[in-house]
Amino acid sequence: MTLPTLAGTLMSGTVAAQTSPAFVNTLMPEPAHLTEGAGWLPIRPGFAVATDKFHDQRLDHTIARAMQQLTQQTGVVIREAPAGSKAALIISVDGPGEPVQGVDENESYSLDVTPQGAHLHAATDVGAMRGFATLLQLVQVSGQGYYLPTVSIQDAPRFPWRGLMIDCSRHFEPVNVIKRTLDGMAAVKMNVFHWHLTDDQGFRIESKVFPLLTQDGSNGLFYKQEQAREVVAYARARGIRVVPEFDIPGHATSWIVGYPDLASAKGPFTIERHFGVFNPVLDPTRESTYQFLDQFIGEMATIFPDAYMHIGGDENNGVEWAHNPRIQAFMREHGLKGTAALQAYFNQQLLRILDKHGKKMIGWDEIMTPGLPKDVVVQSWRGFDSLATGTREGYTGILSAGYYLDHMDSAADHYRVDPLPAGNKLTPAQAARILGGEACMWGEYVDAKNIDSRVWPRTAAIAERLWSPQSVNNIDDMYRRLWAESLRLEALGLTQISQENASLRALAGTDQIAPLQTLATVLEPVNFATRAEWSDAHHVTTLMPLDRLVDALAPDPPSRHDFEELVSTYLQNPVAHPEQQAALEAIFRSWTADQPERVLLMAESPQLAETLPRARQLTEMGTMGLEAVGFLSSGVPAPPAWKAAKLAILDEADQPIALTRFTVVQAMRNLINEVK
Amino acid sequence: MTLPTLAGTLMSGTVAAQTSPAFVNTLMPEPAHLTEGAGWLPIRPGFAVATDKFHDQRLDHTIARAMQQLTQQTGVVIREAPAGSKAALIISVDGPGEPVQGVDENESYSLDVTPQGAHLHAATDVGAMRGFATLLQLVQVSGQGYYLPTVSIQDAPRFPWRGLMIDCSRHFEPVNVIKRTLDGMAAVKMNVFHWHLTDDQGFRIESKVFPLLTQDGSNGLFYKQEQAREVVAYARARGIRVVPEFDIPGHATSWIVGYPDLASAKGPFTIERHFGVFNPVLDPTRESTYQFLDQFIGEMATIFPDAYMHIGGDENNGVEWAHNPRIQAFMREHGLKGTAALQAYFNQQLLRILDKHGKKMIGWDEIMTPGLPKDVVVQSWRGFDSLATGTREGYTGILSAGYYLDHMDSAADHYRVDPLPAGNKLTPAQAARILGGEACMWGEYVDAKNIDSRVWPRTAAIAERLWSPQSVNNIDDMYRRLWAESLRLEALGLTQISQENASLRALAGTDQIAPLQTLATVLEPVNFATRAEWSDAHHVTTLMPLDRLVDALAPDPPSRHDFEELVSTYLQNPVAHPEQQAALEAIFRSWTADQPERVLLMAESPQLAETLPRARQLTEMGTMGLEAVGFLSSGVPAPPAWKAAKLAILDEADQPIALTRFTVVQAMRNLINEVK
Repeated sequence: MTLPTLAGTLMSGTVAAQTSPAFVNTLMPEPAHLTEGAGWLPIRPGFAVATDKFHDQRLDHTIARAMQQLTQQTGVVIREAPAGSKAALIISVDGPGEPVQGVDENESYSLDVTPQGAHLHAATDVGAMRGFATLLQLVQVSGQGYYLPTVSIQDAPRFPWRGLMIDCSRHFEPVNVIKRTLDGMAAVKMNVFHWHLTDDQGFRIESKVFPLLTQDGSNGLFYKQEQAREVVAYARARGIRVVPEFDIPGHATSWIVGYPDLASAKGPFTIERHFGVFNPVLDPTRESTYQFLDQFIGEMATIFPDAYMHIGGDENNGVEWAHNPRIQAFMREHGLKGTAALQAYFNQQLLRILDKHGKKMIGWDEIMTPGLPKDVVVQSWRGFDSLATGTREGYTGILSAGYYLDHMDSAADHYRVDPLPAGNKLTPAQAARILGGEACMWGEYVDAKNIDSRVWPRTAAIAERLWSPQSVNNIDDMYRRLWAESLRLEALGLTQISQENASLRALAGTDQIAPLQTLATVLEPVNFATRAEWSDAHHVTTLMPLDRLVDALAPDPPSRHDFEELVSTYLQNPVAHPEQQAALEAIFRSWTADQPERVLLMAESPQLAETLPRARQLTEMGTMGLEAVGFLSSGVPAPPAWKAAKLAILDEADQPIALTRFTVVQAMRNLINEVK
Repeated sequence: MTLPTLAGTLMSGTVAAQTSPAFVNTLMPEPAHLTEGAGWLPIRPGFAVATDKFHDQRLDHTIARAMQQLTQQTGVVIREAPAGSKAALIISVDGPGEPVQGVDENESYSLDVTPQGAHLHAATDVGAMRGFATLLQLVQVSGQGYYLPTVSIQDAPRFPWRGLMIDCSRHFEPVNVIKRTLDGMAAVKMNVFHWHLTDDQGFRIESKVFPLLTQDGSNGLFYKQEQAREVVAYARARGIRVVPEFDIPGHATSWIVGYPDLASAKGPFTIERHFGVFNPVLDPTRESTYQFLDQFIGEMATIFPDAYMHIGGDENNGVEWAHNPRIQAFMREHGLKGTAALQAYFNQQLLRILDKHGKKMIGWDEIMTPGLPKDVVVQSWRGFDSLATGTREGYTGILSAGYYLDHMDSAADHYRVDPLPAGNKLTPAQAARILGGEACMWGEYVDAKNIDSRVWPRTAAIAERLWSPQSVNNIDDMYRRLWAESLRLEALGLTQISQENASLRALAGTDQIAPLQTLATVLEPVNFATRAEWSDAHHVTTLMPLDRLVDALAPDPPSRHDFEELVSTYLQNPVAHPEQQAALEAIFRSWTADQPERVLLMAESPQLAETLPRARQLTEMGTMGLEAVGFLSSGVPAPPAWKAAKLAILDEADQPIALTRFTVVQAMRNLINEVK
């Protein structure tokens, strides 16, 4: 490196920056309509913002928050325009929106940017929030400064229900985790936070009427009512509804620890520490159960203003009902044939209670039992067919099958799942009953440290599926924007990028983790089924720490898709793609480099040592990759048996080790298979 | 890299791990007495803990928290021993300690570990907390598992007041930041959180009696009383007192925005946005001022149970008192000569109010005015001499001069400052009046994102100075343990390591930041004076974002001390230190590598572009370093004028650029100067 070269590089950078930067669209979700124009609106000192119509405190706070983000990003202090002076950004909002945000809230907005100024228009505060999310994603940068591109955007969501469920029962998540999750949701225009507050493994919301619910059922890990109200207000400020879930009659062990009279079997009970489907279920035959639920739901209704209350309803195995003679007698007496009929009876009583407290019911597929009113919302973990059946019967529903974040599927997998898939045979009226979908973050293997990397950035792909037109479906482009969105989410305070290295430092006991990082970037957790099977076999409980390498790894890291894309482009014509060849060689060399250091680091930590074979496999893949590129780029064939030997190594590398899997095996296979 | 080598490396790692690992002492602070024995206590499944004397809820929670940390670190689920069974760790505590923790709280403990078991003994819950902090730092690891070494520790603090002040006025810090700071403090055995809650730039604690204090004086950024109580409880659970500061009569602009009648000049007033010493000061001549303070302090006393309340008292410039004829008349009438006398009068009234509410006074040096009772504590920003003067007059005091974290000094600089320096001429009775010290994190250039890296790990060095015997003063050993402690602090949830890279990603707009990291690791913020001067010249306000490279950089990063140590060892005999030579060459090569990529990354971001000359300087230093090592290791002299030219380059590199400075210039000078 000589100084003239340096200066030259710098110089050319400067020159390039002085011309208008090209508009790089990293919007996520993609808006419904975007037209690009010529020219730019610079964000420079003096850039001011003003409202020219309605405004209230919620809108004022929205503007202040957005401008603070813009200031933080650009270093340019953005102010409210003094009265009478010209503002670079004008906000026109017609009115406040619904007092309690509902499914019908108007979230549409338009955003027009010209070199003279920007204009955001929305019917409601919530629409304005969506517009600001877009505006913040529009910001472009060059070495000289920040700009908004000339665009005209008209945008509205495809589905009105775009949710994220977080299970805070199996592992508790502190309020600050919930808040930063809400920040992330708002950034990608999601509008429902579904708060799974009770399950067998813990009761997480304070009841003042029934204090033993948390005293005996939570191990001290629960949200005070004041904190829950704070979350509801925080969400409303961001245009997000909060739908609380109290999962009954099954999944209810944590209820009956403190109140055994609610149970269908004889106590005493203890908080469930394992994962799965368990027998404890509320007793649907006693009037006292409904008196309890009436009081409890009445109390919760004072905290959660949303029109909907989620009552779970899933995975009641019926065992305790079948084994309790008194309950069996009740069923005979009431002509209830089977436990499904008894659960339908339970739901009817529950509906009456919800109705009394002004709430509509939402529950999982199993609540679709005869006699339910049509304004019940069914959340389908079973899939589109179950949902479609419901809509034909007149139920409304949302899709969650295909959006289970704990399954450790790729963003692309989730992205391909559509609540209204092309070619569905629903009538327009039936289709309109499918309100949207929810990503689900079940909590078996998630704690406050790693939840961000399990939720983000993959949830942004689901958010786009639920907001953007169906035609927005290019996987490569989705990933390109997903990585950009991930950086923005991190700037909001989410830790999905930084936590992996922090965990690697903790595991290795040193901050010199570079050799380990190379390996970690091409590993991800095994899928849910593999982990659940292993956990059952090893009697894993909620008390065991999530402190292994698998818990540090992000699912679907950039290495998978980006490497596949690189290999695929290279393979289009290996002898004529020197740039891709060089990129692949650099990757393969990094896999073979620092191997002794990597092995030593891993051997010195019990939690890393279990993954040691991965270090050897990485080196083997690096070596075969370099050889493969050598053969392919030169057109020289490999020696006999070379290919078979390498594919065998890849088969071995494809087996789970310590609950980890490689992200690059499939692309490596594609590469090796092309060698002659 | 061939596979046999790999297997060999792995094998030797395994063999080494099967022998007992050597005890690596990374305790921080160092205990008063430690004796090492032979053998190890393994931490393996079945490791259980029990109390054999007193226990209460606070101790139970302390044990549960410590065992959860141990479980998280080791993957071994640690349980309470079932009654009658043998526990590997026995906790013997005599009693609960003081109902409100005071300066005299007994924090001593002893910890004995043998291969048969561990025994922690303490007089109080708080002593047990200190013992657990040591126990968690004692854990050793090999590839086979985790161990406690055989040791006998008797430990007690040198000083009873070991504090950290955080200024939450100039920039607000959310509750979760405060909580993780308290976790860090507990880990290094600090026991006073001094909460600077009011200043010119913001009033940060809710008063229900005087709601305009936060309504008009906080921009909505303040702690609700419930949150403050939560912080007090969180701190108590960790053996930490909370001393709130309400800075009066100066530094009081935020008080008078909502209550202008408190002021010594005519309003209206606005929240101060700049930094420095300002004129606004409470009016000490009106009875209404004292009625206000009486009610306010009475209200605060219900939130903060500590015996002490900090009233600030610093930097009242007296301007408004001197310019107000009514106040001047009052002074004449009461025979008060000068503003110092008037402030003494104010303090007397304040003392009466504090006394009424059961509080003792603590304030900065300026409160040492005639007629104050001797149980007032003086916090000295002026230094040991001011403190010593106070102790000779009978005052007790704590030292903060030398512990200002915002000065951006090194951990070594802070470590060398002693509240009772060797050779001081105090009598034992006078010396006993020096209670300890406090690290001070003033908030001009600190926000929620970067506060962790400004506080940690340097504060751990101050914590050691205040806890450990004076004889513990080896700088190299302190740094060795400081980096180990930093990793442990990160595992607690602090972000002082990870935030730098997160900020670099935000600044560069990409996650491919390796070339930038190389530069960032050898840069740190300029000292406070340089930044303050620049900020004054550029009219910096609290509204401007802290989003430049300087704000991402950690002060005193490992590069400074570790590089100095490496160069110093190498220079002892350059021709005979091949290991140090290789290490230096690797560092210098990393500085010259990836330079074009680094320049491009920086040129594309306005906030990074201002630091661009640093990229060239880094390459120049790398090049001269390689040349210098070449000359020194071969014994070949440099060409004429080489040395002068290189020293000139270093002089240029030593100048601040965009508020950054290099950490390695001094060591580079040492290296270059040794070339013949």
